[in-house]
Amino acid sequence: MTSPDSPPTRPWRYVLGYSRRDFLSAVGVSGGAGALFATMGALGLAPTAEASAKGAFDPPQPSDFSLTGRSAKKVVILGAGVAGLATAYELGKAGYDCTVLEALDRVGGRNWTIRGGDRVTELDGSTQVARFRDGVYLNAGPARLAQWMITVDYCRELGVDLEVFTNSNAQAYIYHQGMQAPVRWRTAKADVYGHVSELLSRATDAGALDGALTAQDKERLIAFLSSFGAVGNKASGFKYTGSSRRGYSVNPGAGEQPGTVLGPVPSLSEVLSSGVGQRFAFEFGYDQAMLMFQPVGGMDQVPRALADRIGRQRIKLRSAVTKITDLPDGVEVEYKDRHGRTQKIKADMCVAAMPPHLLAKTPHNLGAELQTALATPTVTNSGKIGLEYRRRWWETDEDIYGGITSTDLDLATIWYPSYGYGSSRGLVVGYYNFGAQADAYAALKHADRERRAVEQGMLIHGAKYRDELASSVSIAWKLQPYIEGAWVGWPSRQGAYQLLNKPAGHVYFAGDWLSHMIAWQSGALESARKVVTELHQRVLSTS
Amino acid sequence: MTSPDSPPTRPWRYVLGYSRRDFLSAVGVSGGAGALFATMGALGLAPTAEASAKGAFDPPQPSDFSLTGRSAKKVVILGAGVAGLATAYELGKAGYDCTVLEALDRVGGRNWTIRGGDRVTELDGSTQVARFRDGVYLNAGPARLAQWMITVDYCRELGVDLEVFTNSNAQAYIYHQGMQAPVRWRTAKADVYGHVSELLSRATDAGALDGALTAQDKERLIAFLSSFGAVGNKASGFKYTGSSRRGYSVNPGAGEQPGTVLGPVPSLSEVLSSGVGQRFAFEFGYDQAMLMFQPVGGMDQVPRALADRIGRQRIKLRSAVTKITDLPDGVEVEYKDRHGRTQKIKADMCVAAMPPHLLAKTPHNLGAELQTALATPTVTNSGKIGLEYRRRWWETDEDIYGGITSTDLDLATIWYPSYGYGSSRGLVVGYYNFGAQADAYAALKHADRERRAVEQGMLIHGAKYRDELASSVSIAWKLQPYIEGAWVGWPSRQGAYQLLNKPAGHVYFAGDWLSHMIAWQSGALESARKVVTELHQRVLSTS
Repeated sequence: MTSPDSPPTRPWRYVLGYSRRDFLSAVGVSGGAGALFATMGALGLAPTAEASAKGAFDPPQPSDFSLTGRSAKKVVILGAGVAGLATAYELGKAGYDCTVLEALDRVGGRNWTIRGGDRVTELDGSTQVARFRDGVYLNAGPARLAQWMITVDYCRELGVDLEVFTNSNAQAYIYHQGMQAPVRWRTAKADVYGHVSELLSRATDAGALDGALTAQDKERLIAFLSSFGAVGNKASGFKYTGSSRRGYSVNPGAGEQPGTVLGPVPSLSEVLSSGVGQRFAFEFGYDQAMLMFQPVGGMDQVPRALADRIGRQRIKLRSAVTKITDLPDGVEVEYKDRHGRTQKIKADMCVAAMPPHLLAKTPHNLGAELQTALATPTVTNSGKIGLEYRRRWWETDEDIYGGITSTDLDLATIWYPSYGYGSSRGLVVGYYNFGAQADAYAALKHADRERRAVEQGMLIHGAKYRDELASSVSIAWKLQPYIEGAWVGWPSRQGAYQLLNKPAGHVYFAGDWLSHMIAWQSGALESARKVVTELHQRVLSTS
Repeated sequence: MTSPDSPPTRPWRYVLGYSRRDFLSAVGVSGGAGALFATMGALGLAPTAEASAKGAFDPPQPSDFSLTGRSAKKVVILGAGVAGLATAYELGKAGYDCTVLEALDRVGGRNWTIRGGDRVTELDGSTQVARFRDGVYLNAGPARLAQWMITVDYCRELGVDLEVFTNSNAQAYIYHQGMQAPVRWRTAKADVYGHVSELLSRATDAGALDGALTAQDKERLIAFLSSFGAVGNKASGFKYTGSSRRGYSVNPGAGEQPGTVLGPVPSLSEVLSSGVGQRFAFEFGYDQAMLMFQPVGGMDQVPRALADRIGRQRIKLRSAVTKITDLPDGVEVEYKDRHGRTQKIKADMCVAAMPPHLLAKTPHNLGAELQTALATPTVTNSGKIGLEYRRRWWETDEDIYGGITSTDLDLATIWYPSYGYGSSRGLVVGYYNFGAQADAYAALKHADRERRAVEQGMLIHGAKYRDELASSVSIAWKLQPYIEGAWVGWPSRQGAYQLLNKPAGHVYFAGDWLSHMIAWQSGALESARKVVTELHQRVLSTS
């Protein structure tokens, strides 16, 4: 997600002017919070928590037709990924006659939860069969939801239970090549924040920033740094000498066991050269900051619930679209059914919710400009391996319950599971990477992917990372039939992107690739809502 | 927990020297991670992740007696809080004949989960009856576990399932009196880190820190600050102008909706005067940093599971200790049973796992020095109110799924529930405070506590905080019979603390108050393990 330069839409400030604040504070003291609130209300200052930043959406209703005398239309939807399913689900609320064509033998598209017995077949025909024990799964595609995303609302509406997805954990590690040992996030933060606070406190106190700070600013800044960095006082030169935030080598205990704080403390130069601080921004991201969530039991609870609401009989699996023809009064779609026979389906409207690079390979009569547009976005690969372990050594041996270890190895990240804490087996994501790193793994056969992931993981976790392994499954999204990529990027949001965000005759396009939340399910859902709204408005206004 | 000055016990550094790092890096490039690992192993450098920092504990075993010919002894345990229960549980593993006396009509002590139908009676006899719906509960006492605490191991051993306790959430608020509106944690962090990074980048680039930094340090520091603060480049004067990390007033969506970043950005002075940055250190604490956990279904799953393993028949509820007499060959304890009759129990050993200030009120023959020791720690009060709401407006209206809002009001903190996401009702902790703030609420009747908590909460959440309320229950720990406080503090860890950490005749003392993790269940558990180990060793060596 980019940071647009749009002008701010709402006035917002941390603080009132001092005189007003002092006044209110005095009211608060004498009259209690109730009086304070009443006074602020009288001044037009009553604070309100931010409302949700979500856009409005009114799903189509049966009454839209019964009130207007118009009738619901027939819609064919190409692809049973999240965008396609959400389209059918929302249109279905008003009684649209939807048919979903899906090339794979399952719904969900990239939203795929792999469990024991599932087969992972790649474009070259090579196949893995997952041997995971009951209750162990790999979310091969999307795996996390931010609270503000509408995916969370769909979970509520669909009755899909949520639990925390452990996107960051102070107990997990940062590992950069050349380190003597991995460092826990909590330790890295303590040291970076400590040294930076020492440095800035000294500079501030020495007057080096007097041009930018008032005397009061300076005092407040030094007070902040003292707490933020756990640094010493002025007499000690604001020295950072470590703190219990680093962690302990021996935990505090009972009686005469105060614990032993982890040491020694690296120097500022060592901390800077380690590069650990470069990792911290990840968890500040609007889309990545904790708390994050996941459906209980696997991410595919979302598409499964959507499919159940749509009605499974409306979803034709193993039905690969072979031709799209826009007609004067509707649209015709040809597809190969599960028996290899070509079938045709005619509808009033079509919503193409397939990846753009696959639509670009599908014959159609929508014109050359549209074809060029479909071929415009660039495809990115990503990959994961699920390593099932016989025991949860990360919990029992290293006190890590969930979270992500970040590395500069080409495995990129190691994820500890966000479910099944304290149980026997568990699944670690041995790599989640993309781009060139994912391509490097994709070029290997599964056994070699596993070997490489395990060898690299041993750099962090030692021999148990190899010795306790029970089974594994890997995915390379660019090698998945009918998907062939993880997500796409647009060179620009002008031109092709704009064209595909409009219908071509009776054909609409939907998917995360037509949103500003690419690679997020919420992008697919937002796009589906947009297309549903536009299609429904058109039907109501023209039929 | 304090940060002891103990010398570090293990060498630890972020990075190797450059030449060695370069060498290893070169090996890594040519030979892959496997070769790198092998080479590091050969150099004696193979990194290993930190082992758990937990102390060792070998529970007593039946074979300890069968092998030595000695027999298990009779032990009376005073108090069925976490320390008392853990003592009985661990001794029971070796066949000790344990009896637990508990004054209340439930096990757990301060570990108390209040559900619909439960009664909360205070010292003056005033009683609340919880009216919470099924599935709604308040953890009135302890509510969170850090991963490294042995409480987590007990949960594994006892089959108590864990889920994430949402101790911090970027979507929750910071609210200080005088603010025009509460500010989300994510926004506060973006602004503080942004302005601090701008300030430090400029000072570094201007040479103000040249005495402390090498040229390479400077370059690395500026690179770190660029990412950490999302500030502009050198040409822009490293300016912080806000970023998507602040959040959005309109979320990014589909089509032509890139989203609107929240604005405007406050100035450095405004941010400093708001004091929001003073809140950040909370989540760096060894005992508070996320991820934190809670038992599924309520914290009392821990004492309940312990009681089940001990055998409920060994636990005498409503049995208040009235006298402790150490004898030449054992110990005698008098108590009032549920019918008000005085009973006596004789045992070989006693473990007093009651609060020290209540032990100090109990007649005993353990001597004046011990009596003085029991009266030494100071008692701290704490309080909570559970506000049950008819709908989960914090989720539906404000996109807050769990976490804690921090304030400078005397409610201190508001906690959003870590369970039942997306369901209908939910329970918000309307205050969790201690010391003088808790005393202020304790001085009120329940109805007035509720009124005050709601009035203050409206400053953050507006009228729905009052209008959607369904029911509430409050607790003031200093007013709870047979508990009379939240936790204690020691003026020193010398003298009284040391005395009580040794047995007085046949009487041992156990509790979080005899640990370096006061107010944490893990302190109680560590203390129980210590006493169990010492008592068992004495029995094995002397009987």
